[in-house]
Amino acid sequence: MENMNIKKLAKELNLSVSTVSKALHDSYEIKAETKEKVLALAKQLNYQPNPFASSLRRNSSKTIAVVIPEIAHNFFSLVINGIESIAEELKYHVLIYITHEIPEKEEQIIRHLLNGRVDGILISSSGTSNNNAHYHELVQKGIPFVFFDRANFDVDAPRVTTDDYQAGFQATEHLIKSQCKHFAFLSLSNQMSAINHRKDGFLAALKQYQIEPSHVHIIEAGTDETLSFQIIRDFLQPLPVSLGIFSSVEKLAIQTYHICKEIDIMIPKQLKIISFSNLPTAALLNPALSTLTQPAFSIGKEAALLLFQSIKNKGKIQPITTLPNVVLKSTLFIRESTKM
Amino acid sequence: MENMNIKKLAKELNLSVSTVSKALHDSYEIKAETKEKVLALAKQLNYQPNPFASSLRRNSSKTIAVVIPEIAHNFFSLVINGIESIAEELKYHVLIYITHEIPEKEEQIIRHLLNGRVDGILISSSGTSNNNAHYHELVQKGIPFVFFDRANFDVDAPRVTTDDYQAGFQATEHLIKSQCKHFAFLSLSNQMSAINHRKDGFLAALKQYQIEPSHVHIIEAGTDETLSFQIIRDFLQPLPVSLGIFSSVEKLAIQTYHICKEIDIMIPKQLKIISFSNLPTAALLNPALSTLTQPAFSIGKEAALLLFQSIKNKGKIQPITTLPNVVLKSTLFIRESTKM
Repeated sequence: MENMNIKKLAKELNLSVSTVSKALHDSYEIKAETKEKVLALAKQLNYQPNPFASSLRRNSSKTIAVVIPEIAHNFFSLVINGIESIAEELKYHVLIYITHEIPEKEEQIIRHLLNGRVDGILISSSGTSNNNAHYHELVQKGIPFVFFDRANFDVDAPRVTTDDYQAGFQATEHLIKSQCKHFAFLSLSNQMSAINHRKDGFLAALKQYQIEPSHVHIIEAGTDETLSFQIIRDFLQPLPVSLGIFSSVEKLAIQTYHICKEIDIMIPKQLKIISFSNLPTAALLNPALSTLTQPAFSIGKEAALLLFQSIKNKGKIQPITTLPNVVLKSTLFIRESTKM
Repeated sequence: MENMNIKKLAKELNLSVSTVSKALHDSYEIKAETKEKVLALAKQLNYQPNPFASSLRRNSSKTIAVVIPEIAHNFFSLVINGIESIAEELKYHVLIYITHEIPEKEEQIIRHLLNGRVDGILISSSGTSNNNAHYHELVQKGIPFVFFDRANFDVDAPRVTTDDYQAGFQATEHLIKSQCKHFAFLSLSNQMSAINHRKDGFLAALKQYQIEPSHVHIIEAGTDETLSFQIIRDFLQPLPVSLGIFSSVEKLAIQTYHICKEIDIMIPKQLKIISFSNLPTAALLNPALSTLTQPAFSIGKEAALLLFQSIKNKGKIQPITTLPNVVLKSTLFIRESTKM
């Protein structure tokens, strides 16, 4: 069927079947002008190669997958835009899979992708350090993949992260200098590398400024929204004096705002808060939210570039010590929510 | 390869090859208990069917695609959660494709999906009424698809929409009763059905209340963020007296907030604004934003149910007049931004 169509295209254009086939596969051997002619007629005749047959033959799907924990998170939507900006150029399709923060769901998706359905995978892990068997299977099968933001540090794969420790330190130092007396870290999970690095930065700053350990609170809010709302509300009643909150993700900061509104806690007078966030409304909130903002679009771009590099190098053995590890910087935006 | 693995599973479990195969394909002929046993061992032995071979044979990919204009839009992320809640139950994978509001990109994605890569497609159209050839190709190829939110009314396909006209009327009536004198509709595009229905409701309300046509402004802000920011800012300088804005999407309302902050326009004193929105921070903005909120999660669920119905009925001819057309209601939330 495909060959028949290629023959038809070739005849119509007075080109060889091989030239048409190469043009359709965007071969560097073919002039741009010829490619354009072939593609225009292919479109006109509605030529469609069979994707399965074509994938098996060329051993390339011209598709990459992005596996993310959730979609209702401005950080991830910006990252995806960054990824697509690179994929677009290389004429790759981008498939997005959502794990809803469920490690088993992530495993299921990765296993679904194990047999060459895509050429490579970008992963922001929902997993814990205990379940990395599926990543090792990717390594074994030689399927290129790159971690971004939430990496699994027990697995040998390129990764793009941000300076979570330093940013956590900086945010906490800002709360200390804003004269907070009690300090709380809102955690999404104690099993995620990025979140833990933020917490380590938080703890290091408090230690350096010799904050009384009894004034330090780690709140494991978790990924379930109803539950985290309850946990944060319970923590805020009674309200610790001069509380400074450092939220590891924007979702928990938004919940804190809702709770403060509900039980009449005044921000920043009674409670100061700063959060990791790419929220487009951060500056419009009442009060405007101080944030640590990750360069989400650049993270997506860098991760995609590393992945396409891996896809290109596929099969070549790379020593683990040279695995790329890109670390980008977050930016601190001081707004009303941490005002003295 | 696959058969060898099935044989191994069958031998290990002392079952027939046919029983194991049926269990793996979730056949109703097999007891739940047996399925569990088979799946547990399959997981343990890391049994993976070849997806391409299996798709060709069973003629089913157990995958559906969702094609949306953008991801940084709370509406779409909630819809996707609704879709996944149904797909999960039926053990289907959900692939997400983003068109970035570019009709050509949507065409490209749909054509990429034309050859049975997925069992069905959910589409929120970025297209205009002028380019629906790719939808007609889906109809011709017998690939089930359902429109949600942004439907193309020239194409015969099931659709799930909201009461955009009525909601637009209601929002505008609310602005009129809040004593606005000038009225502006912020449009994303004059080529999208949902947006146009909102505009028609807006115009109908103004007509019914006999608002002077010179006090009615249709602002074609467009989908490009830099441009729409400029267009809205230009419209607000000089500021029409007692202006009431009805924004067709939350993105344009957020831009309006940013502009008002920048050029010192007080909301709601000098300008009132209401927007279609599923923003989780709507109630936390300064001032809190009045919204028309679509039942996004339900839209996703309903659309997925219709799609799986179509997939089940595939091949059966349905008269066009019985094509399902589900219309759900939006909810009006009155907050500070439209206060008198």
